[in-house]
Amino acid sequence: MIYGIVFGANSYEHEISIISAVVLKKVLKTQKKFIFCDKNKDFFLIDEEKMNAKTFSSGAYKKEKALVLKQGGFYIKNLLGEKKLEIDVVINVVHGKDGEDGKIAALFDFYGIKYIGPRLEASVLSYNKILTKLYAKSVGVKILDYKILNLHKELNEKLDFPCILKPARLGSSIGISIVKNEKELKYAKDVAFEFDEDIVVEDFISNIKEYNLAGCMINDKMEFSIIEEPKKNEILDFEQKYLGFSDSTKVLQADINENLKQKLKDNFCKIYNPLFKGALIRCDFFVVDDEVYLNEINPNPGSLANYLFEDFTWIIDNLAKNIELEKQVKIDYTFIHSINGQKGKL
Amino acid sequence: MIYGIVFGANSYEHEISIISAVVLKKVLKTQKKFIFCDKNKDFFLIDEEKMNAKTFSSGAYKKEKALVLKQGGFYIKNLLGEKKLEIDVVINVVHGKDGEDGKIAALFDFYGIKYIGPRLEASVLSYNKILTKLYAKSVGVKILDYKILNLHKELNEKLDFPCILKPARLGSSIGISIVKNEKELKYAKDVAFEFDEDIVVEDFISNIKEYNLAGCMINDKMEFSIIEEPKKNEILDFEQKYLGFSDSTKVLQADINENLKQKLKDNFCKIYNPLFKGALIRCDFFVVDDEVYLNEINPNPGSLANYLFEDFTWIIDNLAKNIELEKQVKIDYTFIHSINGQKGKL
Repeated sequence: MIYGIVFGANSYEHEISIISAVVLKKVLKTQKKFIFCDKNKDFFLIDEEKMNAKTFSSGAYKKEKALVLKQGGFYIKNLLGEKKLEIDVVINVVHGKDGEDGKIAALFDFYGIKYIGPRLEASVLSYNKILTKLYAKSVGVKILDYKILNLHKELNEKLDFPCILKPARLGSSIGISIVKNEKELKYAKDVAFEFDEDIVVEDFISNIKEYNLAGCMINDKMEFSIIEEPKKNEILDFEQKYLGFSDSTKVLQADINENLKQKLKDNFCKIYNPLFKGALIRCDFFVVDDEVYLNEINPNPGSLANYLFEDFTWIIDNLAKNIELEKQVKIDYTFIHSINGQKGKL
Repeated sequence: MIYGIVFGANSYEHEISIISAVVLKKVLKTQKKFIFCDKNKDFFLIDEEKMNAKTFSSGAYKKEKALVLKQGGFYIKNLLGEKKLEIDVVINVVHGKDGEDGKIAALFDFYGIKYIGPRLEASVLSYNKILTKLYAKSVGVKILDYKILNLHKELNEKLDFPCILKPARLGSSIGISIVKNEKELKYAKDVAFEFDEDIVVEDFISNIKEYNLAGCMINDKMEFSIIEEPKKNEILDFEQKYLGFSDSTKVLQADINENLKQKLKDNFCKIYNPLFKGALIRCDFFVVDDEVYLNEINPNPGSLANYLFEDFTWIIDNLAKNIELEKQVKIDYTFIHSINGQKGKL
């Protein structure tokens, strides 16, 4: 199996995506090609030896081979024309906008390319935290109560403090603030509105337990990672979260009883199946008084949460075998023929 | 303003989309280019004179100029290379899959092309009738009660008869059945499951009133069409619905009081703003005992519901002026520089 690792694109998490791809170079023990999407949406085939952060930050990637995305795959331009890049399955590790909002999924579905990653509906429902809440409730998974602040609308209700403000459509803790009182609110709103017109507000529960679980469905069976209790300093900020990832440090399994483990897995299944088929996702849960609540869904988690799996390469290889192309519709123009038969005037 | 009318693609409503484009040729009094997406996702620039159904059903379109979709627009291939097709705004009239499920929106957002049509989130929430129900409730619009049948799951509840079965992700009344008793159920399920793994089931209310209202937001003001009471023979089937459209017959305004008109408009606004900004949509409402319920959202209605507007060209021209490109993120690699400064090893 040859993979095409697609990363980059125009997102606040562009740099995180580069780090994810660099990590996958190390941890995914199989043939792979690196496909960089730059901020202008131009694609480049990056030589494996040049897969380091400097290639991108220096702009040196522009000297690599340009790729064209078309029906059936990526094509390498050369003097004689174009040659198809040999890959079997693409892995989408574009985080945030473009990658997790559904655009990359749409491109691959449209052009008939097999990919590991969330499909269009799954992307949209997990990218927007408000939609994630509606979706989770609809499949019987508990969520924390929330209010929505919108840049263009006044909120009539009062907020309770302390609370946590999150831009609706960003991952990686960007733009998130804990607000202790009315005085801190304005600044936190300004920060979050920099990133999105909608802010989700939840009560901040300081002693909340947090557990992360990753997994995917292979041959109709769920394959789970270990359950991680992420270390935190109130909340994980951008650097804490990703500097860890970039080292691919193995994490320790959370010290919780079997009953809670099973509850977390049951909730994961409700979220995953069938919406996220084809993706390896990480769900971040809260636990309060032994009740499980969904915090968020990461449909393309940082470095694909490889550090949570015993045998990451096995997971990816078997997930890849399960990937199907979107079903195509047969079009035969019988309807138009029938109208023209009746009316002869279209 | 020069428009690119994009139509066709791989959808059960491919032929309806061709009819919509042919209708727009007549009713949209402005410069336009016709961009056909065939079932294989190849794009062609169709000469206005050849914009009739036969060009497509006969395959003659393949002799027209091939287009390539890239950053910034559509390009015409020629012997010397490529030339950009001169259009200002694209109008998405691809119905159903590809056009209304979010793929076309994603392509245009990704490649920085201005378009009239639903954005990605709006597409996903209106394409899937189950998500439409969740969304409508979340913005305070009433919906009829429903149950979901899934191809892979047993339903534990009993259905009440008569009921109406609808595939979750199709428009144009395709695959819809009214079921009067248990005996008719199996066949109706088989029909609907041909098109989707999820079926939405609602009680069938025979004397229900139905009203359609189209509109869009121009300069922060809602512009509404007249309110239509569609003629129906139990339910509108595929041909009834679209043979009417193909004639662009002007319809009569529904004979209802001002109070109900205002209620319909208020509900339309709750659905439209801000999710559907950039699109001209039609909402189909039910009225039972003077209460308004959303039936469905058509984010790319047949022939853009032109027949409901007094001055359709004015609406499109002014909507087009309001279209903005998706905001792009500034990427400057400061994060990677800072990590490399600290650790020097990425």
